[in-house]
Amino acid sequence: MTIPLTREDCAARDAADPLAPFRDEFVLPDGVIYLDGNSLGALPRATPARVARLVEHEWGQRLIASWNEAGWWDKPRTLGALLAPLLGAEADEVVVGDGTSVNLFKTVAAALWLRPDRRVVVAEAGNFPTDGYIAQGVVDLVDGASLRMVDVDDPAALAAALEPGDVAVVLLSHVDYRTGILRDMAAVTEMVHAHGALVVWDVCHSVGAVPLALAQTGVDFAVGCTYKYLNAGPGAPAFTYVARRHHERVRQPISGWHGHARPFDFAPEYEPAAGASRFLSGSQSLIAAAALEASLELWQRVDLAQVREKSLALTDLFVAVTAEAGLECVTPAEHERRGSQVALRHPDGYPIVQALIARGVVGDFRSPDILRFGFAPLYLRYVDVYDAARALVEVVTSGEWQDPRFAQRAQVT
Amino acid sequence: MTIPLTREDCAARDAADPLAPFRDEFVLPDGVIYLDGNSLGALPRATPARVARLVEHEWGQRLIASWNEAGWWDKPRTLGALLAPLLGAEADEVVVGDGTSVNLFKTVAAALWLRPDRRVVVAEAGNFPTDGYIAQGVVDLVDGASLRMVDVDDPAALAAALEPGDVAVVLLSHVDYRTGILRDMAAVTEMVHAHGALVVWDVCHSVGAVPLALAQTGVDFAVGCTYKYLNAGPGAPAFTYVARRHHERVRQPISGWHGHARPFDFAPEYEPAAGASRFLSGSQSLIAAAALEASLELWQRVDLAQVREKSLALTDLFVAVTAEAGLECVTPAEHERRGSQVALRHPDGYPIVQALIARGVVGDFRSPDILRFGFAPLYLRYVDVYDAARALVEVVTSGEWQDPRFAQRAQVT
Repeated sequence: MTIPLTREDCAARDAADPLAPFRDEFVLPDGVIYLDGNSLGALPRATPARVARLVEHEWGQRLIASWNEAGWWDKPRTLGALLAPLLGAEADEVVVGDGTSVNLFKTVAAALWLRPDRRVVVAEAGNFPTDGYIAQGVVDLVDGASLRMVDVDDPAALAAALEPGDVAVVLLSHVDYRTGILRDMAAVTEMVHAHGALVVWDVCHSVGAVPLALAQTGVDFAVGCTYKYLNAGPGAPAFTYVARRHHERVRQPISGWHGHARPFDFAPEYEPAAGASRFLSGSQSLIAAAALEASLELWQRVDLAQVREKSLALTDLFVAVTAEAGLECVTPAEHERRGSQVALRHPDGYPIVQALIARGVVGDFRSPDILRFGFAPLYLRYVDVYDAARALVEVVTSGEWQDPRFAQRAQVT
Repeated sequence: MTIPLTREDCAARDAADPLAPFRDEFVLPDGVIYLDGNSLGALPRATPARVARLVEHEWGQRLIASWNEAGWWDKPRTLGALLAPLLGAEADEVVVGDGTSVNLFKTVAAALWLRPDRRVVVAEAGNFPTDGYIAQGVVDLVDGASLRMVDVDDPAALAAALEPGDVAVVLLSHVDYRTGILRDMAAVTEMVHAHGALVVWDVCHSVGAVPLALAQTGVDFAVGCTYKYLNAGPGAPAFTYVARRHHERVRQPISGWHGHARPFDFAPEYEPAAGASRFLSGSQSLIAAAALEASLELWQRVDLAQVREKSLALTDLFVAVTAEAGLECVTPAEHERRGSQVALRHPDGYPIVQALIARGVVGDFRSPDILRFGFAPLYLRYVDVYDAARALVEVVTSGEWQDPRFAQRAQVT
């Protein structure tokens, strides 16, 4: 399809967009074009009532009875089952709970136990920092383990890191949080397996934006969050995917009672539950779970192939229209190497992003020089993306970002 | 004070109760006497609006701007500061985030790093199972570490466990989840320290019910939840207390980016933040945080000495009135050894509890034979406790619990 380059072209594309009706299912603030759904997804209209029902009825009126009658105990599994189709997984391969950092810890440690003769963890240089920090935490705790950082976008470097045959597990992101580069999950997983190692994929920046086929691709473990493209709210719970072939032998060290085979026996010995359930630890916020459930019910009706097609069209459009601003585009032009975001580079990226926000176009800045824009196809129109791109061109070419107020750094950037 | 043994005595006691006004600040279902606030605390009336504001305004309208303008990034610290007075701690010694199980993992691992020449973890036999399971998970991951289980209510047994001088850390609960026994935190901490070990106290069953003086008592670490006596909602976030004297040297292995000294530098190397903040890992649910904030604001106005006095009076009353039922009372008669719950023993505890619930008196059952009743002084009246105790006597003496429907086990007990 050709890239629409006038606002009229964009309006025509919106009129024909099969995903267009979803926009009405989200709360979107007036006067804002929100290109940060890759950081915190917009609020689904159904969520407030669902959260209120949990708080006022299930908690307030029914109290502990809700553990049984509202299915609280099984929420990590029933939410996992709702997530599974978005991951290309079976229901019992996914559990919801804890955060991304904690789940990365569990899966990397689990992989080290599955490969007791290998003590090296390969992690991605330049990944979102928590991934490397967590890998470091695991190897510091496990005797003889060590960390090897590698540029995973260089196949020769990855092959060289795997070559010694001492690698237990490779931890990397499906989509780079800064550049938006999409990795070839199938090829990397195959290469890692060919060297006898396991792989943990961080899919925070792809779930809900890129169709995933974790089971078919042979992925061992995957971890991701639900507050970006999945619209489950700030700090919403993360999930863990555990391939069925590991279910019998795998164990993880944060072995809390929710991961026990018979938790209400209160037995002194830990005996892991079947399937991915053994990756659970303790109680999770049911209020947060209610918000996630509301968003996942919406996502059950979404065709991810349509999402991917529109995502690529929106990023194509944004790149084409912003070209006039003359910023370097870091995100690959090739569709098969692009997630659902566009990263542009400018040494004054921070004030430019602030000036754009002052115009109602919300993107974000990633140190040292990346202007980052995320594209959530369920609630963004082609005309929104066109208007946002034009605004960026105007902000850059007018020099309005040079106003000193845009240089003042906030705590969270 | 004498124990009120008639309903009129109880009504008089309620009329003079300084905590009585707090009852109106909670939602309490009609026709229910709720003696399970030690499992899931009742809903504060202020909470639904606070949660709705977070969802609809901070998330829905302000989106990522709330990370700065609503103080989202610092919530684990600002909530920790609100909790600190309830723990007898300074504001920078407490952070909120993750669950009890995960925080036990962090603190036990941290203690092993602080005592590198010692590899034994002493854990409490009979503790709430997750504590022992987590301790097992840590020692399984750490080379040379091992677990020693001990009856902590037997001072000679604890002394014998510490005697070899190989103990890095002792993990135990302040109040036993089944029996309601309150441990002498000062004496145990002193004994542990005298043997060169550190202590992690699980205060899930005492925070909000028993005044704590963690700093003054010299406690090294404490972990607890906020969904019991603190009324923050099902699965609400847990907290971690880290004594200031450890702040410089301590580290923990789930070293995520929220525990970094400068998280928005996105630096490749992990550098721990100052104080208890280094015990943070990743993003936490802000919706859950809003509910906790609402309850903690209420708790700022509570005098814990009054709570403790009323708690002891209510448990005295319940024990005295239920004596007629002839069940063995497992909870100590001595005030200084009693938490805020009463445990009675009966081989048919499960159907008796169910029959009581059918009458609107909610307690719970803990395998194999414990009927457990918790007393939350902020919303329980003396007359409620009297009526509940009389109902128990009637259920037991009438034999109405023998109705087969009460024997059907639910998933969650």
